[in-house]
Amino acid sequence: MGHSPTRTGQESSFRHHKASHVLKGLASNPHDLTIEGNLSPTRIERFSAQAGEFKLLYGTERVNDDVMHTLKELSHEAHLIDKMEAMQRGDVLNKIDGFPSENREVLHTAMRDFFMHPNQGKGAMKATAAAKAECNKLKAFMSKVDQEGKFTDIIQIGIGGSDLGPRALYVALQAYKKHGRVAHFISNVDPDDTAAVLRSIDPKKTLVVVVSKSGGTLETLTNESLVRAFFEKSGCKPEEHFLAVTGEGSPMDNPERYLASFYIWDFIGGRYSVTSMVGGVMLAFSLGFDQYMNILKGAHEMDRIALNHDFDQNLPLIGAMLGIWNRNFLHYPTVAVLPYSQALLRFPAHLQQCNMESNGKRIDKQGNPVDFDTGAIIWGEPGTNGQHSFYQLIHQGTNVVPCEFIGFRESQYQEDLNVQGSLSQEKLLSNLFAQSIALAKGQKSDNPNKVFPGNRPNSILLGKRLDPFTLGSLLSYYENKIAFQGFCWNINSFDQEGVQLGKKLANKIIDQFSAKRQGKKAEKFPEAEALLRHLESL
Amino acid sequence: MGHSPTRTGQESSFRHHKASHVLKGLASNPHDLTIEGNLSPTRIERFSAQAGEFKLLYGTERVNDDVMHTLKELSHEAHLIDKMEAMQRGDVLNKIDGFPSENREVLHTAMRDFFMHPNQGKGAMKATAAAKAECNKLKAFMSKVDQEGKFTDIIQIGIGGSDLGPRALYVALQAYKKHGRVAHFISNVDPDDTAAVLRSIDPKKTLVVVVSKSGGTLETLTNESLVRAFFEKSGCKPEEHFLAVTGEGSPMDNPERYLASFYIWDFIGGRYSVTSMVGGVMLAFSLGFDQYMNILKGAHEMDRIALNHDFDQNLPLIGAMLGIWNRNFLHYPTVAVLPYSQALLRFPAHLQQCNMESNGKRIDKQGNPVDFDTGAIIWGEPGTNGQHSFYQLIHQGTNVVPCEFIGFRESQYQEDLNVQGSLSQEKLLSNLFAQSIALAKGQKSDNPNKVFPGNRPNSILLGKRLDPFTLGSLLSYYENKIAFQGFCWNINSFDQEGVQLGKKLANKIIDQFSAKRQGKKAEKFPEAEALLRHLESL
Repeated sequence: MGHSPTRTGQESSFRHHKASHVLKGLASNPHDLTIEGNLSPTRIERFSAQAGEFKLLYGTERVNDDVMHTLKELSHEAHLIDKMEAMQRGDVLNKIDGFPSENREVLHTAMRDFFMHPNQGKGAMKATAAAKAECNKLKAFMSKVDQEGKFTDIIQIGIGGSDLGPRALYVALQAYKKHGRVAHFISNVDPDDTAAVLRSIDPKKTLVVVVSKSGGTLETLTNESLVRAFFEKSGCKPEEHFLAVTGEGSPMDNPERYLASFYIWDFIGGRYSVTSMVGGVMLAFSLGFDQYMNILKGAHEMDRIALNHDFDQNLPLIGAMLGIWNRNFLHYPTVAVLPYSQALLRFPAHLQQCNMESNGKRIDKQGNPVDFDTGAIIWGEPGTNGQHSFYQLIHQGTNVVPCEFIGFRESQYQEDLNVQGSLSQEKLLSNLFAQSIALAKGQKSDNPNKVFPGNRPNSILLGKRLDPFTLGSLLSYYENKIAFQGFCWNINSFDQEGVQLGKKLANKIIDQFSAKRQGKKAEKFPEAEALLRHLESL
Repeated sequence: MGHSPTRTGQESSFRHHKASHVLKGLASNPHDLTIEGNLSPTRIERFSAQAGEFKLLYGTERVNDDVMHTLKELSHEAHLIDKMEAMQRGDVLNKIDGFPSENREVLHTAMRDFFMHPNQGKGAMKATAAAKAECNKLKAFMSKVDQEGKFTDIIQIGIGGSDLGPRALYVALQAYKKHGRVAHFISNVDPDDTAAVLRSIDPKKTLVVVVSKSGGTLETLTNESLVRAFFEKSGCKPEEHFLAVTGEGSPMDNPERYLASFYIWDFIGGRYSVTSMVGGVMLAFSLGFDQYMNILKGAHEMDRIALNHDFDQNLPLIGAMLGIWNRNFLHYPTVAVLPYSQALLRFPAHLQQCNMESNGKRIDKQGNPVDFDTGAIIWGEPGTNGQHSFYQLIHQGTNVVPCEFIGFRESQYQEDLNVQGSLSQEKLLSNLFAQSIALAKGQKSDNPNKVFPGNRPNSILLGKRLDPFTLGSLLSYYENKIAFQGFCWNINSFDQEGVQLGKKLANKIIDQFSAKRQGKKAEKFPEAEALLRHLESL
């Protein structure tokens, strides 16, 4: 981290930045959006930014010029662009100083740095070269698959980052699928997840991608065994259908068991892996290799935007700082991500992982417990559906929920109809804009049930059309926004120690089950035994 | 509401109950689950309840005997069972005293009260008779459909309660589907939602259920128009394929346009409508009429349990009061619903609606703004998947998230394999129990990154197997839990005024679009016009 400061005392602690003190003061009297005239067209113009294929409209946040100026100051004081540069060039950012930790580079941006202005960092260049080699391998493999015409379906077996991101992108790009190609997903160790998928495929025509960096993920290996058994029972040789996406030299990197192996590396965190081979194999099969490249191009464009020193054009940085304002100064515990696009149905679930696993942390990078709030709880569903669901609480509940709207000017299929004087796409966008304004302005009424308090902060990320390129940009927008927030809080956004305790205890309980079945005794675990007794008495 | 008190002064306000004061005191020192021995087998036994097909295990909540005793007291003081009786028998509970409001009965429980001990309330009996008549109509209709063998697919067009609940149940019961029957769902006014579904069906073999109580829901009518146009273009007569689920006499109750109409009534709120014809038509087609009846039987069983005056056997009431403890006394803003069953993938989205639209309110039933927190933010995804996603934050984030686990002893398909010494179902349940214990107990460590603070409250709802009957019970468990909480807070859980403002503004913006297309002028709306200019410049 050559360009970023080392910690001496508390200077680099988030709460001790000068700008943090100023923001704390400003937060005692945030811009009141409910006063007539306070949400003016001028304001909407003033608080907007454009970069790449997107606009960010944030006049409906509770900010004013002072707040935006000070958020920019904070981004300087916390060296956020320096840290982003350090990340993208390959410095070792995934670590906790002074304690055993992962100690890794964070180079998911290198997975898509093939197109223009490639990063000149040594680590980045090495990672990009490796990623490019895998892409070339994939291109050759897919062209063979296309030629042979044997496969119509693909099953992706993976969990967490090997599932949520790839699935969200696949669902979002149904309109761009190659004719006759279908992808399926198995993730949960729940045996019903596998059983349901296996009912819907013909193994003879199906490829299976098994994704595990370590080659040792419990859920994934278990599900792979179930699927292998099914293929064998159906008279198919798994080694002619199964592909491995794994670390080079892992137990899964074995040509006797897999038709091909595609590599990923320690410097790609699961939740940031969708543009690597983790998503690449399935996406290239379903959409075609060129569309997979378009996703990478879009992501790369936004990675470059995240390096822009001009705050007003750096969309992920503006988004990050607005989030910090809402989280640390207005003290809102959650954020709703509300895409007005049914295709983005599973995108909030991906962001939930990417954001909450990255920034749901309680110690800083020097191992000190933080004395401020880190990552918020992220949730959401597409609009207009959500309007008929949880929006009641967003408008009139006792908790304020900052909302991040996402919308597109055009639909994907361009199949629309004028019903009662307007197109569906116009209705969709009208609802998006209406919600943004309604949440901000609220409504006065003599009937207390028709009172809307307003001052519900929100922003709109607006694009022209959801296609592979813009989806890549959108993905990168959020990845970089999350990284910026982690940098600002001085936490490690790239490890996930919080998942270890559950794993450890689960293995002890699995031993209880096994021991019981074999009439043996397992290690004592009184609480678990009490729960198991309840299970047995059902 | 004959059996419940009328409000005089502040006596019936949630914060002024005697028990509320006691609970406030107890909350200053809640049970510490992290102290060795404090989560004992005895405790797990003590804090458990069983009724119907379910057990509720809540030893991992931050309660003790005093807290549970006082929560029971609070349920008495707030007359929760009286109010549940009033609801189920058909008193007018959906109203705000002294202000124009919906003024309706709340009788979703009557939709499934056919099996034993039918409610003797006048309103309930009338509603049940009407519901039964629709069921008989549906049974006859489906037996004709089965005989003719013409239809394989069904599209449900509806939004909010006409979508989320039915879809959640359909997804949950894939293992019980009739051979060769498939359901599809169109909800969003986004035209891509419709376009994607229409690509996947053969109109000749497809029934379409259009669901709108009023016959006037914008999204639903728009999507119906798109689907009708598609059927006509394909040479199919819509009136031979389209079914209406609507209010008697609504614009949709029209035999010239629909093959059949099935009725719903004002006393069924959308988010509580899944067991009515709103879910019934699609579920009876997909699963068979008998399985639909099994869902109703299960729901009815839990409705009866909700009337049990014995607190310790009334699962929805215990669940409700634990929620009140976490929300109003320990002050947690969200609740995560975490089913360890992939089939329950969309169940949290249904609960999100049912809970947040019901209890995301800011005034009490007399129109006074409340001075305490009402409904929490509900979110969640199935485990084990979530463990590789947002659980990091649940374990080590700076916000505490109460968790409601749901699990089943057996899998649905019963297709399982012993991998590395254990079955998948055993691994699944081991993970569930491990998470519950890990969240409660936490972990000490010299490495600050391996410290888990613990005291993360959670409970487990445990059933034998997820089938139509138990799913009906689960649905009713949550419906009644939500109603109990609303009764306790003295709010109206059955209206949704908070959705109106957005609708009103959306219509004004739709007019802007239409006017622009026709070169006319619409009513001024400066903020919206500013947003539209941004859209156009993309």
